[in-house]
Amino acid sequence: MQIDRYIADRLAQLREEGNYRVFADLERHRGAFPRATRRSGSGSGPVTIWCSNDYLGMGQHPDVLAAMHGALDRSGAGAGGTRNISGTTHDHVALEAELADLHGKEAALLFTSGYVSNWAALGTLGAMLPDCLILSDALNHASMIEGIRHSRADRVIWTHNDMADLEAKLAAQPLERPKIIAFESVYSMDGDIAPIAEICDLADRYNAMTYLDEVHAVGLYGPRGGGVAEREGLMERITVIEGTLGKAFGVVGGYIAASADLCDFVRSFASGFIFTTALPPHVAAGACASVRHLKQSSIERRIQQERVAELRARFDAIGLPHVPNPSHIIPLMVGDPVKCKFISDTLLDEFGIYIQPINYPTVPKGTERLRITPSPVHDPADLDRLCTALETLWTRCQLARMPRAAQ
Amino acid sequence: MQIDRYIADRLAQLREEGNYRVFADLERHRGAFPRATRRSGSGSGPVTIWCSNDYLGMGQHPDVLAAMHGALDRSGAGAGGTRNISGTTHDHVALEAELADLHGKEAALLFTSGYVSNWAALGTLGAMLPDCLILSDALNHASMIEGIRHSRADRVIWTHNDMADLEAKLAAQPLERPKIIAFESVYSMDGDIAPIAEICDLADRYNAMTYLDEVHAVGLYGPRGGGVAEREGLMERITVIEGTLGKAFGVVGGYIAASADLCDFVRSFASGFIFTTALPPHVAAGACASVRHLKQSSIERRIQQERVAELRARFDAIGLPHVPNPSHIIPLMVGDPVKCKFISDTLLDEFGIYIQPINYPTVPKGTERLRITPSPVHDPADLDRLCTALETLWTRCQLARMPRAAQ
Repeated sequence: MQIDRYIADRLAQLREEGNYRVFADLERHRGAFPRATRRSGSGSGPVTIWCSNDYLGMGQHPDVLAAMHGALDRSGAGAGGTRNISGTTHDHVALEAELADLHGKEAALLFTSGYVSNWAALGTLGAMLPDCLILSDALNHASMIEGIRHSRADRVIWTHNDMADLEAKLAAQPLERPKIIAFESVYSMDGDIAPIAEICDLADRYNAMTYLDEVHAVGLYGPRGGGVAEREGLMERITVIEGTLGKAFGVVGGYIAASADLCDFVRSFASGFIFTTALPPHVAAGACASVRHLKQSSIERRIQQERVAELRARFDAIGLPHVPNPSHIIPLMVGDPVKCKFISDTLLDEFGIYIQPINYPTVPKGTERLRITPSPVHDPADLDRLCTALETLWTRCQLARMPRAAQ
Repeated sequence: MQIDRYIADRLAQLREEGNYRVFADLERHRGAFPRATRRSGSGSGPVTIWCSNDYLGMGQHPDVLAAMHGALDRSGAGAGGTRNISGTTHDHVALEAELADLHGKEAALLFTSGYVSNWAALGTLGAMLPDCLILSDALNHASMIEGIRHSRADRVIWTHNDMADLEAKLAAQPLERPKIIAFESVYSMDGDIAPIAEICDLADRYNAMTYLDEVHAVGLYGPRGGGVAEREGLMERITVIEGTLGKAFGVVGGYIAASADLCDFVRSFASGFIFTTALPPHVAAGACASVRHLKQSSIERRIQQERVAELRARFDAIGLPHVPNPSHIIPLMVGDPVKCKFISDTLLDEFGIYIQPINYPTVPKGTERLRITPSPVHDPADLDRLCTALETLWTRCQLARMPRAAQ
């Protein structure tokens, strides 16, 4: 076959379906985030970012940057090897201790990304525990799905956040069989939150381990930023907590926190941990500073929650249909892929507002949306500009509004 | 079953087999590399690293560090999102252009690590090209093996660097069937180099694509550091060149370079590319500075090659059994796991020299070795100290310490 032609055809098909991704080329401005300069596409100029996962603006926090500059000066640019072959530095060791403490666990294990942490940890546990069954929430992230697939363990998918379905699926299994319930706390696209306590109850009743992805929650929930499980006093009931250093902590990298033996087991057998260059020491140092800061400072979380509440109230006042959920993620529903892309493009070109459209296959057809993430660094004038722009475009696109009394 | 007990037993088993990894906790000293401070284990103190993959010391190059400090000040710590959702910055775009140019390709695509680049690119190509067959060299890296496994494409393993075997396996397939020959240029553990021209000839004859991992070669070979394929004038014959930013370039991250459509295809379909936070902008800026520097400066490569030749000559003079190979990697063969670990531990404790032992399963039993990577920043006095220490330990082990191990 003609492979070049096949590849070109598949790309053309993506374009026809409206699923071809064009990346916005941005220059972030440290100290001025969410401000950035757009350097591509139909125009250049200043933009305000409303879809970043740097949820608290920690990517520009002076403590984080000072730690990174300091470690760059002290240790240089990279780790120079895998963790086993010259790539473990004291910054890695210190960060793992800091993360174990954050989650009240004996140990933590760093990975190059949150994606790799899910893929490697679930891939290893599922493959190595004899006859292991993984019970996976239907809306789990791609990295968990790929890890489970990689493990070749038996897998059962339970209806999203549905305790009756999960219980039925647990009850159908022998009590003695090794089982892992894999789920997230905050789901990224809908912003809903799992019933963690009920899941732990079921895990106890049916003799299952729990694997909780808190990537959209660490730094953001709980008195020390330990996530939803910390807020609800449930961390010790979770077998493995997985988190990221690339969202609220503002840097890059991923990790698991668990018992010392479980971390050591994954450390010893996970190909995606063993055979890869370690994160640079200065990345570990920056992440460590960020985790430390958010353990003792709640003001970023408080202001973020105020901004989220304020924007929801403003949307309600002008009838913009956002999904009510208990998290910091505001899905503004458009429900049409062409309009969703049009609104996103026009926000960028006319209003200097950047919100990436979320279309199929990331979300189901008919639920196309703008996923908005207010942060403590968005000021009231930013909220004004966003609401004015969205109201204008909602009218222009003749999109339906919610009655004011709703919710 | 008792999962905690199972995990503890598996860890105990690793310890009994001598395969339990203990990470050396190091503090790299920028400007003084290969010098570092050891902060763990049976002692602390200054060490000289002889097993780093920061092959040229670029991790402490002033241009690289200046670019990273500058981008940290300009753009902050992290990318704040996936490449598609606010995470593409101009530093990523510039680095991809620089890498495409390095390999004479239309495009390049960044990944969070070299491991992920192999896993995602081979995983996507193998899964998406209809009826694809991947012909994989028997000694390919774990990341390629996992990518091929992930793709669920048919796979045929050919004997390492054996052209007759590769040809037989190609000839057994229909000419029209999509085929990818996956191999490396420099193999990390033996330091041997693939016959790239012959492989390209076979690829032409049997209508196959070529996928070449140059992670242990980029920056090190070729007039601009494009790798062995550049040195041999073969880059345009290779379909996909995969490289890393975490070894000779001294930072972290991985990439592929190929046609614009092929990169776009992987960009559009690879889960491990799409659903992960982008590398921080300052990491891209540092890598870009490193690639640019090594395109126009050959002195690092030249001095490295001199150091490698000098150390080989010194080993020959004192009768130390190193594997003759045409690369910069010097495998010093010990051939016994206990002696290998003993020599490594003693080098560290008595001589302040750090060389991680390479034992099974990384290499076959009976071929345990010290993998030594001389760099331009090792000075003649370092070579003296290394040779003196090794000669002492060679004598000590052979004469008195390990008589029972001669099994």
